[in-house]
Amino acid sequence: MAKDFYGELQLGILGGGQLGRMVIQEAINYNVNIHVLDPDKNAPCRKLCNRFEVGSLSDFHTVYNFGKDLDMLTIEIEKVNVDALEKLEEEGVQVFPQSRVIRLIQDKGLQKQFFKQNDIPTAPFQLISTKENLLNANINIPYIQKLRKDGYDGKGVKKIASQEDLEHAFEEPSMIEEWIDFEKEIAVIVARNDKGDISAFPLVEMEFNPQANLVEFLISPSTLSFEIQQQAEEIAKKIANDLQIVGLLAVEMFLTKQGEILVNELAPRPHNSGHQTIEGNYTSQFAQHLRAIFNLPLGNTSTRSNAVMINLLGEEGYEGLAKYEGIEEILDMEGVYLHLYGKKYTKPFRKMGHVCIVNDNRELAISNARKVQEILKVKA
Amino acid sequence: MAKDFYGELQLGILGGGQLGRMVIQEAINYNVNIHVLDPDKNAPCRKLCNRFEVGSLSDFHTVYNFGKDLDMLTIEIEKVNVDALEKLEEEGVQVFPQSRVIRLIQDKGLQKQFFKQNDIPTAPFQLISTKENLLNANINIPYIQKLRKDGYDGKGVKKIASQEDLEHAFEEPSMIEEWIDFEKEIAVIVARNDKGDISAFPLVEMEFNPQANLVEFLISPSTLSFEIQQQAEEIAKKIANDLQIVGLLAVEMFLTKQGEILVNELAPRPHNSGHQTIEGNYTSQFAQHLRAIFNLPLGNTSTRSNAVMINLLGEEGYEGLAKYEGIEEILDMEGVYLHLYGKKYTKPFRKMGHVCIVNDNRELAISNARKVQEILKVKA
Repeated sequence: MAKDFYGELQLGILGGGQLGRMVIQEAINYNVNIHVLDPDKNAPCRKLCNRFEVGSLSDFHTVYNFGKDLDMLTIEIEKVNVDALEKLEEEGVQVFPQSRVIRLIQDKGLQKQFFKQNDIPTAPFQLISTKENLLNANINIPYIQKLRKDGYDGKGVKKIASQEDLEHAFEEPSMIEEWIDFEKEIAVIVARNDKGDISAFPLVEMEFNPQANLVEFLISPSTLSFEIQQQAEEIAKKIANDLQIVGLLAVEMFLTKQGEILVNELAPRPHNSGHQTIEGNYTSQFAQHLRAIFNLPLGNTSTRSNAVMINLLGEEGYEGLAKYEGIEEILDMEGVYLHLYGKKYTKPFRKMGHVCIVNDNRELAISNARKVQEILKVKA
Repeated sequence: MAKDFYGELQLGILGGGQLGRMVIQEAINYNVNIHVLDPDKNAPCRKLCNRFEVGSLSDFHTVYNFGKDLDMLTIEIEKVNVDALEKLEEEGVQVFPQSRVIRLIQDKGLQKQFFKQNDIPTAPFQLISTKENLLNANINIPYIQKLRKDGYDGKGVKKIASQEDLEHAFEEPSMIEEWIDFEKEIAVIVARNDKGDISAFPLVEMEFNPQANLVEFLISPSTLSFEIQQQAEEIAKKIANDLQIVGLLAVEMFLTKQGEILVNELAPRPHNSGHQTIEGNYTSQFAQHLRAIFNLPLGNTSTRSNAVMINLLGEEGYEGLAKYEGIEEILDMEGVYLHLYGKKYTKPFRKMGHVCIVNDNRELAISNARKVQEILKVKA
């Protein structure tokens, strides 16, 4: 199969953001013809593909028509019209990850039920259909309320810790789960190809920006115990196998203060917690995603060196045409790799790029990353 | 200056081949708007840029009109209309490398005279204007005859070793130089920015395909003595400084059997002898070229691991729509990175891609590369 791909394969990507952009940077090495659909005419992928189409990712006809003449479709965002993908699959277009996987993951309620059914450790939860149900929930406050659908990058998530919070709770169908007083947020990205090969990237530790609820700082490799790392990797591989997914799967987990691992959420695509693999690992997550969907042998996921990834977020208080401060200064530091996402406009906490900092000395990698974080700013 | 670049810079590349393609893969990280001019409508860059124009690189008006509204121009091939570049420079477009550097390097005669004037070690040579002059040359056969202009990838070069060879010698203005019975062909790529910072990549050793006269195999880092490496690096840096070039400069040299280094040729751009830097060094030659022309601090050129680069050449006996054999097999090997150039048609010895093989063990890197060379084929 793979041999047909080189030169002739028409690959569609639903979503034209930074994840698609980094997939394209890698897909160039495979002579793949890339088609991108995104609602934003200024999307980061717009000038880097064979065809860029502006259109809604959630509209059945738009997605169906975009995909019907392609060989293969993949996604860089889960919020897409799955019915169209299912129909395309029936008509012979390869859709990776498969539509049934996207459908499951789109709904945080179904996702949690899947964990439960498959003995995957996760925090106790309850599905809620109306706000009234919240009042007689089986889970005591504080808890986390998540919209079942359409949450993204911290949106659609609320902590309910008081009577007042309850009054401002989401009204839509949601899932509530016990508040986990975790020690660390960790993630494992795993890949599975159609032959059934499964390979996991080493676990990474994340630090979140509490205001924006976005990954802000990520350290690879982890210094957690071998047992924890192995256990997290086994869980991630089990999920990939239970789902029979083809493509990448990012598994976000909590490590509790008691040393227990609980699966938080899945993302069936390249993920922010894997950006450091471009410079830090032998195979990048983007290369691995392509290997997986093309049913090629999966690449070596080992780390090449310590790598710290920081997201470059739009500075608070600035909105408009993006201007970057400090680029020259950070590029004068050793082991600093800049990735800008080609976004014209900045706003507070918008992901405008990321920086990866590698160093043979872990402490230096971290302190250099802190410096970059202080120096580099996106303003308007 | 650099701060204006991010997002708004309009960068033109003369030539849309694989070198431009790999420049673009890197330029994506800097939000640069890329414009490409190439005579071939199927050129590798055609779908990866903001604007792709089909047109002659040697036509004054085509190059001038292509460049006149851009901020900056660079090249991926020397054979371009320099008069147009000179006019563009006068009108305020930044041209890196500068038109005077391209003009000098385009003419192998001027190049050699430059070496002589600047005490750069090179083989004895003589400039020849007509075929008749060859008969009373000061250099005894065997010698190498090179066309002063338009030679490329082994074209425009003849070894003159006999009376019969003399009869088939080039008629055009040429340069003849003493036949060097060299031990090894080596290359150093050096970068210089407008601030005058100069940085060299570690020396690499090359093996040529004698039939095609193309680099076939390249090993980094070299195991030659520290003195030789240092001497080659000093020569390359001196040339960059003597030229006051802005951008990359590849310096191809011979190491003679007597241990002497003689400069063979220059290329003022990313070069085949630097492809292994993508995976093998902290900074790739493409990233370094961008840093140099954007007047940013130059990156760390150290090697990250042993890297062997092999060119993927069109198999002899095949011409037409390219088909690749063995891709799945080579991707199952460790440390193998495939770069296809997006060329639709193959012909014997056409550069269709390259493969980089990295390994902590140098001998393994080399033997794996030999395996890849046996397995991977481009046919039609």
